[in-house]
Amino acid sequence: MQTLHVELGERRYPIFIGSHLNPQALLEPYIHGKQVMIVSNATVAPLYLEHYEQAVQALGKKTAVCVLPDGEKYKNIEHLNLIFDALLEAGFNRDCTVLALGGGVIGDMAGFASACFQRGVYFIQVPTTLLSQVDSSVGGKTGINHPLGKNMIGAFQQPQAVLADMSQLNTLPDRELSAGLSEVIKYALLGDQEFLVWLEENMDGLIARNPELLAEAVYKSCAHKARIVANDEKEQGERALLNLGHTFGHAIESYLGYGAWLHGEAVAVGMVMAADLSHRMGWISAEDVERTKKIILRANLPAVCPKIPLDEFLAYMSHDKKVLNGQLRLVLMKKLGQAVITKEFDVELMKQSILANQQ
Amino acid sequence: MQTLHVELGERRYPIFIGSHLNPQALLEPYIHGKQVMIVSNATVAPLYLEHYEQAVQALGKKTAVCVLPDGEKYKNIEHLNLIFDALLEAGFNRDCTVLALGGGVIGDMAGFASACFQRGVYFIQVPTTLLSQVDSSVGGKTGINHPLGKNMIGAFQQPQAVLADMSQLNTLPDRELSAGLSEVIKYALLGDQEFLVWLEENMDGLIARNPELLAEAVYKSCAHKARIVANDEKEQGERALLNLGHTFGHAIESYLGYGAWLHGEAVAVGMVMAADLSHRMGWISAEDVERTKKIILRANLPAVCPKIPLDEFLAYMSHDKKVLNGQLRLVLMKKLGQAVITKEFDVELMKQSILANQQ
Repeated sequence: MQTLHVELGERRYPIFIGSHLNPQALLEPYIHGKQVMIVSNATVAPLYLEHYEQAVQALGKKTAVCVLPDGEKYKNIEHLNLIFDALLEAGFNRDCTVLALGGGVIGDMAGFASACFQRGVYFIQVPTTLLSQVDSSVGGKTGINHPLGKNMIGAFQQPQAVLADMSQLNTLPDRELSAGLSEVIKYALLGDQEFLVWLEENMDGLIARNPELLAEAVYKSCAHKARIVANDEKEQGERALLNLGHTFGHAIESYLGYGAWLHGEAVAVGMVMAADLSHRMGWISAEDVERTKKIILRANLPAVCPKIPLDEFLAYMSHDKKVLNGQLRLVLMKKLGQAVITKEFDVELMKQSILANQQ
Repeated sequence: MQTLHVELGERRYPIFIGSHLNPQALLEPYIHGKQVMIVSNATVAPLYLEHYEQAVQALGKKTAVCVLPDGEKYKNIEHLNLIFDALLEAGFNRDCTVLALGGGVIGDMAGFASACFQRGVYFIQVPTTLLSQVDSSVGGKTGINHPLGKNMIGAFQQPQAVLADMSQLNTLPDRELSAGLSEVIKYALLGDQEFLVWLEENMDGLIARNPELLAEAVYKSCAHKARIVANDEKEQGERALLNLGHTFGHAIESYLGYGAWLHGEAVAVGMVMAADLSHRMGWISAEDVERTKKIILRANLPAVCPKIPLDEFLAYMSHDKKVLNGQLRLVLMKKLGQAVITKEFDVELMKQSILANQQ
């Protein structure tokens, strides 16, 4: 097992990364109060709920459970309210802990509920998808969607601890494993060429779910995100680097309709477009673009998107909230493994990059 | 005009207190972004909305308005969501300001919405009742009720600035003015005997709505609360002093049904009970109890409550969230004007104090 500490001063917390971890021993110092609400979903609960319930009860804590339906479409205020209902029906007070057991949606909702219940209680995350292990484990972003926009309502809420158990990834569908690898590749492309070499050497093992390799990939990804977030907790600057591939990807997701493609799939194509534009800007070589595409394809991710009319693609890009003061900012690569946030790009070249990477 | 600065480090903010204040000049430095959402209610909006809308527009800002129905019963998640709807329908982004124009309910809801929208935008308070001027102006507590408990869901959200205009109190019903004075008296009883003497000298003028006297009472009250909150922002200790009269008052409100008595009315009787118990404990004199009752009666507040069966009264007291780890803590007076938080009281004497101050 490896432990990564996310350095946020008083709110410093550990991420435990390994296989067949012991939640009772690991979480004991991080559960506050006598009451623990486990929030999960209908897919994950039958697999892992009992294990965590027993571990928490063995620590002498009262547990209660809130199982939500599985899916992004339930990440809304009505289902958030079900968590509040469960907390109050169980008679929980402000000295309690909310434990999220599930993927990104459960982490976002349980985290936001913990930020608001009694104006803030304790929060522990047990991410059960590769995407949530490398993404939601670090950063403290929680929240829900609104019919007029994703993640429009939320809070910054840091967990007390995160437990990322690779053995739980064995039940993850192949497509979701690949979507998680998309974000892993992102960390290599935005800041670590050595990590890219490591991924090129180990991608077959990752796809085969070798737990040691997965744990290493999660550790390296979280370490990258933690370093960036520690420098920029409230997303004023550097944190925007984490959006590599996301502005293009957002347009693809929006056009296809959320749910048609997984987020990681759209981001994969978005990273190819960002690499392509970085090459057209003269910053990276054609070989660098090919390496980007190749690692994405080896992760069983798409490198091109369906045909989308350019005007619609551009309209969706500018709806992305990374647009500040009406000015589109993109995350591009100055070198392979070194991303920058820039407004200084040629719009005509950007259009070429979009068109060149469609079917 | 007087300006009180609430000292919270980076989140230091001013409370402007006076009559016929100029919102355009005063608020200009504190409105962030180009978009301002004014949240008000159906009672206050017809009186003052246009004034503030024009002031904000004169600063070159885009305004939008969300008018909620008036009353505590609307302080719920459904009506909170109406504020999010309004923000998103108006196309507001994370660089916007929410301005609360109304009493405590509007301040709580608009403040909470501002804490959650886009994970936190800017917030300005214009409290239009005496109670909200002396209570919600300081402390950063925002939130909504749940069917199973009041203020169960919320956030700590500090405003950029507060504008407390005494001229707006002319439209306040008499009963609400008195309910606000109840909290003013509380600050004197809990920490400032000189302020009690001042209130004894000036209560007739306050009831007659003399704006200079009201401004002075608001200033002194906010200064007391600000000092306590600055020492204890997240309510770990000293802040509980602000609950003087509230545990008894909570039982009265709960038994009578919320809305039958105003909060300040129940707190007034609660303060008499706390004074009575402090006397029975041998801490303050019978004359001190009489002074407490007298100032409460001169503010046109009740000093006794209707007959409530003792067992029910006690049950409601122990439901109050000031109970920590199952142990009832009360705020009592060691001296008149000097409150303490204590578990060391005689339960039999407490019962006598409750029974002695019923009709």
